[in-house]
Amino acid sequence: MRFDLKSEFTFSGDISTFKTELTSFIKKFNDEIIKKDKSAEIKDIKIIKNKLGFTIISEDVFRPHNALLQIKNNIGKEFGKKHHIGVRDIKIHGYDISFELEKKPLKDIKIPFADVKFKDKKATVFLKNVDEEFLRRNYIDRIINRVKEKVDNQYYEGKGEFWKSIWESEAKKPVWTKDPTEEMVKKDWLKQGPTKGKWFYRPQAAAIFKTMEKIAVEEVLKPLGFQEIIESNLVPFEVWLKTGHMEGMPGEFYYVSEPATRDVEAWERFVDLTKITKEVHIDELKKNLGEPVGGICYAQCPLIYWSFKGKTISEKSLPVFVYDNTAVSNRYESGGRHGIERVDEFHRIEPVYIGTREQLLKLREDLLERYKHVFNDIFELEWRMAWVTPWYMQQAGKIGDKVTQDTGTIDFEAYMPYRGDRKKSEWLEFQNLSILGDKYIKAFNIKAQKSELWSGCSGIGLERWTTAFLAQKGLDPKNWPKGFRKYLDKLPNGIEFL
Amino acid sequence: MRFDLKSEFTFSGDISTFKTELTSFIKKFNDEIIKKDKSAEIKDIKIIKNKLGFTIISEDVFRPHNALLQIKNNIGKEFGKKHHIGVRDIKIHGYDISFELEKKPLKDIKIPFADVKFKDKKATVFLKNVDEEFLRRNYIDRIINRVKEKVDNQYYEGKGEFWKSIWESEAKKPVWTKDPTEEMVKKDWLKQGPTKGKWFYRPQAAAIFKTMEKIAVEEVLKPLGFQEIIESNLVPFEVWLKTGHMEGMPGEFYYVSEPATRDVEAWERFVDLTKITKEVHIDELKKNLGEPVGGICYAQCPLIYWSFKGKTISEKSLPVFVYDNTAVSNRYESGGRHGIERVDEFHRIEPVYIGTREQLLKLREDLLERYKHVFNDIFELEWRMAWVTPWYMQQAGKIGDKVTQDTGTIDFEAYMPYRGDRKKSEWLEFQNLSILGDKYIKAFNIKAQKSELWSGCSGIGLERWTTAFLAQKGLDPKNWPKGFRKYLDKLPNGIEFL
Repeated sequence: MRFDLKSEFTFSGDISTFKTELTSFIKKFNDEIIKKDKSAEIKDIKIIKNKLGFTIISEDVFRPHNALLQIKNNIGKEFGKKHHIGVRDIKIHGYDISFELEKKPLKDIKIPFADVKFKDKKATVFLKNVDEEFLRRNYIDRIINRVKEKVDNQYYEGKGEFWKSIWESEAKKPVWTKDPTEEMVKKDWLKQGPTKGKWFYRPQAAAIFKTMEKIAVEEVLKPLGFQEIIESNLVPFEVWLKTGHMEGMPGEFYYVSEPATRDVEAWERFVDLTKITKEVHIDELKKNLGEPVGGICYAQCPLIYWSFKGKTISEKSLPVFVYDNTAVSNRYESGGRHGIERVDEFHRIEPVYIGTREQLLKLREDLLERYKHVFNDIFELEWRMAWVTPWYMQQAGKIGDKVTQDTGTIDFEAYMPYRGDRKKSEWLEFQNLSILGDKYIKAFNIKAQKSELWSGCSGIGLERWTTAFLAQKGLDPKNWPKGFRKYLDKLPNGIEFL
Repeated sequence: MRFDLKSEFTFSGDISTFKTELTSFIKKFNDEIIKKDKSAEIKDIKIIKNKLGFTIISEDVFRPHNALLQIKNNIGKEFGKKHHIGVRDIKIHGYDISFELEKKPLKDIKIPFADVKFKDKKATVFLKNVDEEFLRRNYIDRIINRVKEKVDNQYYEGKGEFWKSIWESEAKKPVWTKDPTEEMVKKDWLKQGPTKGKWFYRPQAAAIFKTMEKIAVEEVLKPLGFQEIIESNLVPFEVWLKTGHMEGMPGEFYYVSEPATRDVEAWERFVDLTKITKEVHIDELKKNLGEPVGGICYAQCPLIYWSFKGKTISEKSLPVFVYDNTAVSNRYESGGRHGIERVDEFHRIEPVYIGTREQLLKLREDLLERYKHVFNDIFELEWRMAWVTPWYMQQAGKIGDKVTQDTGTIDFEAYMPYRGDRKKSEWLEFQNLSILGDKYIKAFNIKAQKSELWSGCSGIGLERWTTAFLAQKGLDPKNWPKGFRKYLDKLPNGIEFL
């Protein structure tokens, strides 16, 4: 790496009267730096009236921007009293940073605050007109990382996800090959809307759906000692900043704004317009809305982690097994919505587990056993499990073909007969299970009395369970497996329309 | 009422060549009108080149703006072919409407599209530069109604709600007099946030809360034959326009916007800024957001009515008894938030009933009996019931002191010992029950095979049930009534923090 920082300090008075003193002071500072990093050099020192200009160069570990504040402080100590003078302002006229990339960029990139130029595998970032605050806030390192990441992404684009099968049930003869959503709509069990990717479940469909919920709680969560919690449906940006969702999928949230006021007078014109025109006047409405403050739940785990933020968990409470079954999740799907299986709004039970590595590896075995029991003995599904990892997270392919590795995500997939041949068609991901190491534990500063903590979660998508089951077993309770009929043997009458 | 409409038609060509014909045609039209309304008169007819100006006056049932289109059509029929001419444009230069108010206005009012002046009990609305479309859309009548309503409201301001007790339990000695929310926070059962007026329930508090849910379903809804449905958590403006919520409480919704796109390139700069600064740049975010499309559930009944929109219900499915227990409700509270009992986000089971008047009056008796069973036998609460009606809906005080009237709302209120003396302190509304006549039935055009339909709903606020119970019975299961301990005898261990 090479750093080249051109800076200018403005003082509260003339400094040219002690020019020699100041110059030799800075040269002495340079000698100190060189002890730590031989490549570092402060040069082009210029002193005119109340201004001190210099350039800092380094080609190793030393970061010139970290020295600026130190120089400012040291000057204050050395000359402040003697000359009744201080640094009023620090200007950065230019900051060029060059570094090597692992791979040659395939195309140019853009980044805020800087120009970026590539020459073979070398990148140079040109920062202009940044201020002291900018340097102090650690933006520089993040800009460098972001440039590297963008070049890496050029190689991964379109590569999709890593997928490796680790278990497969036997093939099972499906009861039918119809699309359950379409059939339920025809029977008036289900109604689309009122907005995109959302559904209204009439009594028959709701009864099946709620049975899935009951089975998940009774057969998986309660036997393993999970305790229910209730979280808010609204996630503030601060929480998503910590989990990384804010930078990861901002195009998928449903955003929420509060009214700027409840004051009746402020709303009077909007109410008048609504009463007179029977339409919503968006421009008038927006005058009374605040800025977006957060979004509707995307996954339930962020708020569960937030609830432990900064806490130290008593050793005897470990492992912590909790789940939320209340928050409703929203993900904006621009295309590809299909039935109740690919939607903008869905209902998930999310178990979260916090404990030692050993406790979580043990839990994974227990959870897998309970899930197998549900999918094999109660649903009698045709399904499989696979390790999945986004391509860019693969870490040199260290993913095994058994459930033995420590961290990672297992997807559960069900055969969907209506999509065609079991070998060629896409199966439905209807469940997952992750152990995430200490990523969120660190992000939320969660501690235990003694132990090192890990965490993980497992999303139980109730729409997915419902549609996987119905796609293989049909809508007629007569054809459902015995284990499931113990929970739901007869559908409610529903409502008949003419 | 008096209407005075000054209008001008512009033709596609010169009409002064058949000025006499046209004038007598309009006078003939006037003769027709007078047959229906003696006060109507078309006068000041002026014809210059391609323009026809006239004034229509009326002091009775005839609405001048309704005649404009008819005149246009009739002129087309009469002169179109003969003179190869047509009306290109209708301008309204001014439209003054005067009408009598019931009461003398206490102060001036403002209204969109018009100036309003009062003289004693007479109001005059001056509409200027409105177009044909404006007249056709029925805005005029709604403006007149809105003026009347605003003057009425001047008399009701600050009058609050009508309240009449209809039943009261005996006084009961409370177990304690503490505020249950505060005590649960101290015990780490409950955590405030992460945003205003929202809560995180840890296992002990969640267990109590979920027991309330279970009791409501098992002891009230199932015995009466209610069937569960599942609705979306998101209500589009169109639905709230039909129910009247949009004009009723726009300052209380949590508004929702979707991303304008999921396109990764469009979001790249926002992602860069987030990764580099670890902050959310609202202005950059807003470039990628669409306009507000709706809000988070406020009450569950609007979407239940929407699900029946335009449907004809089979006679044998009547009465329809359904409930939603999935959507989470949000109401923006600017001030006065308190504990889990006055919050921005809450959880309600909402039974909705649709049937004949007789079926609903019978259901009200049955529901009251079940609620009494829960509050008397299971919770052993000190509570009361009252008819409540907003002042402006009182309809000349026709509210009785028994549960005999047809439509209206009954509130259930519980004594909250921590608030002080039972006679002087405010009790908590923890439940309501309404029969609403055909208001929503008509708004959503819901029909039955033969019967005339009514509807109603009853909000079971789970936070309110929980806090009413705990405020009287305390947090120690030892002190809870037997009936409740059948449902929850022992609290979960929860999570211990250091």
